[in-house]
Amino acid sequence: MTQLASHYLETFPNPALGRDYTIRIDIPEFTCLCPKTGQPDFAVIKLEYVPDQVCVELKSLKLYIWGFRDQGAFHEAVTNQILADLVAVTMPKFMRIRAEFNVRGGIYTTVIVEHQQPDWQPPVYIQLA
Amino acid sequence: MTQLASHYLETFPNPALGRDYTIRIDIPEFTCLCPKTGQPDFAVIKLEYVPDQVCVELKSLKLYIWGFRDQGAFHEAVTNQILADLVAVTMPKFMRIRAEFNVRGGIYTTVIVEHQQPDWQPPVYIQLA
Amino acid sequence: MTQLASHYLETFPNPALGRDYTIRIDIPEFTCLCPKTGQPDFAVIKLEYVPDQVCVELKSLKLYIWGFRDQGAFHEAVTNQILADLVAVTMPKFMRIRAEFNVRGGIYTTVIVEHQQPDWQPPVYIQLA
Amino acid sequence: MTQLASHYLETFPNPALGRDYTIRIDIPEFTCLCPKTGQPDFAVIKLEYVPDQVCVELKSLKLYIWGFRDQGAFHEAVTNQILADLVAVTMPKFMRIRAEFNVRGGIYTTVIVEHQQPDWQPPVYIQLA
Amino acid sequence: MTQLASHYLETFPNPALGRDYTIRIDIPEFTCLCPKTGQPDFAVIKLEYVPDQVCVELKSLKLYIWGFRDQGAFHEAVTNQILADLVAVTMPKFMRIRAEFNVRGGIYTTVIVEHQQPDWQPPVYIQLA
Amino acid sequence: MTQLASHYLETFPNPALGRDYTIRIDIPEFTCLCPKTGQPDFAVIKLEYVPDQVCVELKSLKLYIWGFRDQGAFHEAVTNQILADLVAVTMPKFMRIRAEFNVRGGIYTTVIVEHQQPDWQPPVYIQLA
Amino acid sequence: MTQLASHYLETFPNPALGRDYTIRIDIPEFTCLCPKTGQPDFAVIKLEYVPDQVCVELKSLKLYIWGFRDQGAFHEAVTNQILADLVAVTMPKFMRIRAEFNVRGGIYTTVIVEHQQPDWQPPVYIQLA
Amino acid sequence: MTQLASHYLETFPNPALGRDYTIRIDIPEFTCLCPKTGQPDFAVIKLEYVPDQVCVELKSLKLYIWGFRDQGAFHEAVTNQILADLVAVTMPKFMRIRAEFNVRGGIYTTVIVEHQQPDWQPPVYIQLA
Amino acid sequence: MTQLASHYLETFPNPALGRDYTIRIDIPEFTCLCPKTGQPDFAVIKLEYVPDQVCVELKSLKLYIWGFRDQGAFHEAVTNQILADLVAVTMPKFMRIRAEFNVRGGIYTTVIVEHQQPDWQPPVYIQLA
Amino acid sequence: MTQLASHYLETFPNPALGRDYTIRIDIPEFTCLCPKTGQPDFAVIKLEYVPDQVCVELKSLKLYIWGFRDQGAFHEAVTNQILADLVAVTMPKFMRIRAEFNVRGGIYTTVIVEHQQPDWQPPVYIQLA
Ligand SMILES: [Ca+2]
Ligand SMILES: [Ca+2]
Ligand SMILES: [Ca+2]
Ligand SMILES: [Ca+2]
Ligand SMILES: [Ca+2]
Ligand SMILES: [Ca+2]
Ligand SMILES: [Ca+2]
Ligand SMILES: [Ca+2]
Ligand SMILES: [Ca+2]
Ligand SMILES: [Ca+2]
Ligand SMILES: [Ca+2]
Ligand SMILES: [Ca+2]
Ligand SMILES: [Ca+2]
Ligand SMILES: [Ca+2]
Ligand SMILES: [Ca+2]
Ligand SMILES: [Ca+2]
Repeated sequence: MTQLASHYLETFPNPALGRDYTIRIDIPEFTCLCPKTGQPDFAVIKLEYVPDQVCVELKSLKLYIWGFRDQGAFHEAVTNQILADLVAVTMPKFMRIRAEFNVRGGIYTTVIVEHQQPDWQPPVYIQLA
Repeated sequence: MTQLASHYLETFPNPALGRDYTIRIDIPEFTCLCPKTGQPDFAVIKLEYVPDQVCVELKSLKLYIWGFRDQGAFHEAVTNQILADLVAVTMPKFMRIRAEFNVRGGIYTTVIVEHQQPDWQPPVYIQLA
Repeated sequence: MTQLASHYLETFPNPALGRDYTIRIDIPEFTCLCPKTGQPDFAVIKLEYVPDQVCVELKSLKLYIWGFRDQGAFHEAVTNQILADLVAVTMPKFMRIRAEFNVRGGIYTTVIVEHQQPDWQPPVYIQLA
Repeated sequence: MTQLASHYLETFPNPALGRDYTIRIDIPEFTCLCPKTGQPDFAVIKLEYVPDQVCVELKSLKLYIWGFRDQGAFHEAVTNQILADLVAVTMPKFMRIRAEFNVRGGIYTTVIVEHQQPDWQPPVYIQLA
Repeated sequence: MTQLASHYLETFPNPALGRDYTIRIDIPEFTCLCPKTGQPDFAVIKLEYVPDQVCVELKSLKLYIWGFRDQGAFHEAVTNQILADLVAVTMPKFMRIRAEFNVRGGIYTTVIVEHQQPDWQPPVYIQLA
Repeated sequence: MTQLASHYLETFPNPALGRDYTIRIDIPEFTCLCPKTGQPDFAVIKLEYVPDQVCVELKSLKLYIWGFRDQGAFHEAVTNQILADLVAVTMPKFMRIRAEFNVRGGIYTTVIVEHQQPDWQPPVYIQLA
Repeated sequence: MTQLASHYLETFPNPALGRDYTIRIDIPEFTCLCPKTGQPDFAVIKLEYVPDQVCVELKSLKLYIWGFRDQGAFHEAVTNQILADLVAVTMPKFMRIRAEFNVRGGIYTTVIVEHQQPDWQPPVYIQLA
Repeated sequence: MTQLASHYLETFPNPALGRDYTIRIDIPEFTCLCPKTGQPDFAVIKLEYVPDQVCVELKSLKLYIWGFRDQGAFHEAVTNQILADLVAVTMPKFMRIRAEFNVRGGIYTTVIVEHQQPDWQPPVYIQLA
Repeated sequence: MTQLASHYLETFPNPALGRDYTIRIDIPEFTCLCPKTGQPDFAVIKLEYVPDQVCVELKSLKLYIWGFRDQGAFHEAVTNQILADLVAVTMPKFMRIRAEFNVRGGIYTTVIVEHQQPDWQPPVYIQLA
Repeated sequence: MTQLASHYLETFPNPALGRDYTIRIDIPEFTCLCPKTGQPDFAVIKLEYVPDQVCVELKSLKLYIWGFRDQGAFHEAVTNQILADLVAVTMPKFMRIRAEFNVRGGIYTTVIVEHQQPDWQPPVYIQLA
């Protein structure tokens, strides 16, 4: 777990332990620094997860995300790091992170990473009429 | 069941007992208070269910929803509580609640929870030409 | 069958008895009265069915729908009643009714009900290139 | 077969006998008369078929469709009649007709009918990357 | 093969022989003459194929398409002819042609034809997260 | 591998070796020269891949793409060449390249190519409620 | 003034007497009866006005509008009558009513009527940057 | 000035005294109570103004708006009151408030009010090419 | 002029001195800190100007904008400061800055400021057919 | 006039000398090099003009635009240069060039320049009903 995660991320007990349900969190204000040039990068981070024992506390998540403001971070690495930190802290049944980075040098990059408990069964979506 | 539910929620007999059908209710005017800061939160609540013996009465549902206006409530907990209250009162064959909260601190949160009777079989949707 | 149905609804012989086909009828001008307050309610009614021996005659359907103008009716009950009336009169192979009610007290309600002959096989849709 | 069909509809040999392929024809200018009131009705007719030995000739189809201008015709009956006429003349492997009638008395009606040769196998659509 | 095809169409060796891949070519400027009236017809031609040993050369395809400008051609026949010519010249693993003709006499016509090598297996599309 | 690839393309170790995840890169500023006429061609290149041991470094990718500016290149060949170069350098589990070329002579061309490790299993997408 | 107006419409003192401002009220649920056929008509009523001494009370306006449910009324007459009633009761500086009636017999009708105090000066709209 | 205004609203010196410029503030989360029924009302408040000596401080504006949560308020009165309070506190060169209330009883209401210093000249908008 | 401006902003001679023309620059990646709470703010900055003797150099503008990343700044003040800095450095004939800030506490704020040389005549836009 | 212009640009006599009319030309494939870094820039060039004695020949314009491919050019200078070249060659009554450059460093730049004969009267656009 990174220092940012241990410093900021907090959890609270899942209020509905016996139930698989979805929490979706969109964070359009992610910014960090390019580790090569020191120039700012920007991204939209989209998180969705099925909690197990704990949920991530939203204000602590906001502070954790703000903590990247002064950090150098490659696109692929930082997306995996955010997943690793959130998995380490919340140990969810399933988690997906999608990071859509702003254009740099005429190139648009998106990174999508997932974590899943080995024995978790994904739900079948029920489509009512 | 919460006091809000026992105080407000009322039901009436399902007028079509022998049939699985869908009731969809959208409530764009949900508001409660942040339990940490006391500041107001807002959400759109979307409910869909297949009734069993009873349906929820719409005016009582409106009053129940208005009852959260002065209550402190975390996003994940209040969504699960609304589901638990409505399940306790209506014991439906299936119910899904989707709560889309307004942005706070640059973060957009949505919580989706479901309940299902153990032996209920979801319908297969018939798509006519 | 309700009085409205026996008074108004008429049928004519299905002009294509040996074939499963779809009739879709949208009625955006449904209005009835709230049985609690006497205030008018409005809805869009969407009907789709596969006829068996008879079809519902469109002008009689219009008069039947207009007949609700002075009737008190709960959302769930009236949607099921329209289905029951139309099924009693036409005994279709399949029928679905979707009633989208106008907002009341900040709440939007939609009710969807279906009927199906026990031994009817839904068609497989053929998607040409 | 109706008089209109025998009078107008013409075919030409399928130029690709050994191949299942799709011909789609949209006719937005169909008009006939209401057999009860004599008032004009309007519809969009959408035809799609897989020809067998012959194709319907387009100008003859146009004249056939224009032939309904002074005919009284119920929505369900005329849609099935057009299918029956076209099937009688072209004996296709598959044919679907979709008739979307203009609003009358606040009611929108659509009728969809299909014909299929008993031993014809519908194609599996190939979706390239 | 038609004279147009033998006169114009040229190929070049598939630069990736061992791989099934997709080439999609849209030609919005097809025009020919109605063989009955001599009046110009217009269509959008959409071609997609999986090449085998050769690919069709684009400039030669353009000249081949321009070659129809003074030719009389029925909708169904010309679509099948273009497929036959391109199959004769390129012998692809799979080819589909979709010709969307402009409205004539109030009628819109689209013809879709396909060719496939008998033993070719269509790909399964991989949808990444 | 082409000279352009060996000159420019660089990789870095995959920061999440044990995990299948998606990297999507859109490059709207690809330009090369028509090998027949010397005239400029333009395309949008869309790349998506699942990395194995290494990822492609974004700035090196930008320079590699810029390297085509003075090169003659056929549409089908250059798309396959970019895939071959990127596969040679990164040996990914899966890679797809989609090149959408600008209109030339009234013709729009798109080429889509894929590479896959023989024993790689594509992921099943988990759709949460 | 009509009986409907004197029975239902109520006013309250304009809370901002010294200021010209705009009140806009949209009423999508207007329905009355065709005086010739007794069949229901439907319309969207859009009201905008600059109050003088009094404003129209909203609940009383709702009841007044509902009062047309059982009244026969021609499109042009009823729009002018609503204006006349509201002007008689509120004597506004300016009032405009726009009634958009649902299609009947393939015809869509909209009626727009205005009232203005003889010496009232309409405001000049200020468009900030 | 109301108690809410004197309790909450704060200003800060206009940082650009010699210049007419525009400040636009949208507040989608306004809620108050209906003074007749005690039921909650909701509105979107849109404020635009040209400051004179002071600007309204945004956090104090947020608290002032939240202060209406437990107050009874008619649509027309509360919109004028918000304008009066903000004018009393900031004495702007120009201010416009637009309050779009949520539907109640099938009726949508919007109130637009403005204030202007008697000798203030509205800017002429410069449209560059 | 601020330190940021004197440190970063550079100009180059206007390449078309005798002509009034428009330069429009959109900067979607502005971020600074809230001077009260230290929390990050985000905005889209839109700049348009008619240069006089010099133009602002784009890379220096980018660095100047990035310089706000660690600065505390109120919305109204920072928008006026950016205008003042750019006016001090470029002394344009006309300049407008529009800053659209991200939502904070449920409030969306936009600030628009302009500068104009006293004797400059704005162009009349010529609209060709 | 630049070498590019004298080398490539050609004209032909205006075929409608006595008439003011509009010629609009969009060029989405402009590319040049950044004079500071040597990296490619891309822009969409939009040209509209009212010709006087001559019109610009389209193929020569294409070659002229392609001529910038290997030239270093600042955004503001190159837009003015294209205008100057085209004015020198065609001496139009009116000409406007709009150059929309691709994003660089998170900044989007557009430059709009115009030329007008001193005594030319812009047309009044006639809007038919
Ligand atoms: Ca972005
Ligand atoms: Ca909260
Ligand atoms: Ca309260
Ligand atoms: Ca919301
Ligand atoms: Ca009545
Ligand atoms: Ca509705
Ligand atoms: Ca129609
Ligand atoms: Ca010719
Ligand atoms: Ca067309
Ligand atoms: Ca393109
Ligand atoms: Ca209508
Ligand atoms: Ca609203
Ligand atoms: Ca924003
Ligand atoms: Ca540059
Ligand atoms: Ca070059
Ligand atoms: Ca662009």
